Amino acid sequence: MTKTFELNAYLGERRKLVDEAIVRALPEAGAGDPGRLKEGMRYAVLQGGKRMRPLVIIAACEAVGGAAEAALPACCALEMVHAYSLVHDDLPAMDNDLERRGQPTVHVAFGHAEAILIGDALLTCAFAALMRGADRVPPANLVAAVRVLAHHAGVDGMVGGQALDLALGQDIRDLAALEQVHALKTGALYAAAGALGALYAGADADTVRSLESWGLKFGVAFQHADDILDDDQKALRAQALARVDQLVGECDAIAAPLGDKAEPLRAISKWVRDRAHDAAAGVKAD
Amino acid sequence: MTKTFELNAYLGERRKLVDEAIVRALPEAGAGDPGRLKEGMRYAVLQGGKRMRPLVIIAACEAVGGAAEAALPACCALEMVHAYSLVHDDLPAMDNDLERRGQPTVHVAFGHAEAILIGDALLTCAFAALMRGADRVPPANLVAAVRVLAHHAGVDGMVGGQALDLALGQDIRDLAALEQVHALKTGALYAAAGALGALYAGADADTVRSLESWGLKFGVAFQHADDILDDDQKALRAQALARVDQLVGECDAIAAPLGDKAEPLRAISKWVRDRAHDAAAGVKAD
Repeated sequence: MTKTFELNAYLGERRKLVDEAIVRALPEAGAGDPGRLKEGMRYAVLQGGKRMRPLVIIAACEAVGGAAEAALPACCALEMVHAYSLVHDDLPAMDNDLERRGQPTVHVAFGHAEAILIGDALLTCAFAALMRGADRVPPANLVAAVRVLAHHAGVDGMVGGQALDLALGQDIRDLAALEQVHALKTGALYAAAGALGALYAGADADTVRSLESWGLKFGVAFQHADDILDDDQKALRAQALARVDQLVGECDAIAAPLGDKAEPLRAISKWVRDRAHDAAAGVKAD
Repeated sequence: MTKTFELNAYLGERRKLVDEAIVRALPEAGAGDPGRLKEGMRYAVLQGGKRMRPLVIIAACEAVGGAAEAALPACCALEMVHAYSLVHDDLPAMDNDLERRGQPTVHVAFGHAEAILIGDALLTCAFAALMRGADRVPPANLVAAVRVLAHHAGVDGMVGGQALDLALGQDIRDLAALEQVHALKTGALYAAAGALGALYAGADADTVRSLESWGLKFGVAFQHADDILDDDQKALRAQALARVDQLVGECDAIAAPLGDKAEPLRAISKWVRDRAHDAAAGVKAD
């Protein structure tokens, strides 16, 4: 399997599953939609995006013997959390962004008060979506999934990371401070992705923790690679590249005992490492 | 029991339990609190409030044979949801309120971006708090609890009600339109309170639905009573008072088969009816 594994084909197939599930998990817009909140929820989630977090959930789920389909409720939930965070981060009081992926941001397209409520509705809907797995996943694992998502999305995870980023502003001087922001703002949701994939495969607590750790390391590596690609943090570039290598190595060590089933996980982290190296070498990568 | 039931003593004892549990369920502020989010979460929740929703949870739980203590995780969760909704409703883009209960609102005391994040963190923390019941409550009931809370707090419940209220503005002409706002904006969380109380007592689905219905009717009656008390909606006052009587009668019909255990529920809805009548008669009630 290892030698012939095609990451793009794998991701393309899973992404199709994820996109179909997300469309179904969002409320229907149409009549009876005061403030166009449901329309705005769909706009925020269906406007594109790489679906990286859901794809990590599926790869983690399959790495411990689960089926991709079993993990779809968690995929929808995590993507809604990611989308809500972008809606709120784009608000005038936060980053005041007017465009995202070439389209007006939600507060521009739907109004300021509405954007606050659309974000709130997406975050709330995420927890409902997470529970859609009740027919295939042991209830105790669903309870753990709520805990995992709330922890990593909350004040000790993503929301805390956004606050730290706002508090530090341009005052990030070394890789450790930068990585603290990355770990909370980006890493936390990837840690949730790893854990959720394992939980929706019905895995035990040790396995869940191990994939949670994989997700955190992957998420930080991913964000360092993004910085290198976007030419951010130029002064820290060489250090960041070395750190990507180290983190991806640690990911590989976690995935090693899982054997061939973890090939997609390994391919995803290798893709991040290659992307970082290509970017550092000035090669325009995808 | 009926003749000697003392509502104030009952509420006072339960309220003490709720207040202690909420203090424990919130994250500790202190060092490592970028943007003072944790401090702000505590400020938003611990700044007072009648804890009516948690008290309804407990009364509903006891009405179907549960212990007050078993329902405390749900009490903390619902109060956090209520608190987050106030933080976001008070924002400049929404109601732009500067004071609440005689104190600066969260965005005034902690900053605008921070208030958005404090609300987000509270909503997220609510779902973690809800899962604290895992040692006493069947996992399937916890899964149902997440669904109930997400449904009533979300776009088809409280958040949708806030959007409807913003969309209608002053354009509320009849009791039916007013009641639609009340049912979503206030009734939904009380419906959740009734259902959560039953779920944390380990009740079956029919009982949960019945107390969910009690909660919705109670919540709408409560909000009509509040309008009468605050002299809002003067033109609709006589109609609103008749509607309170009708809704409380329907609450009593739901509670009747539950016997003496439902005495607190009955006393709470009677209190709302009396309050509405006293207010309509110009008696300054508590």
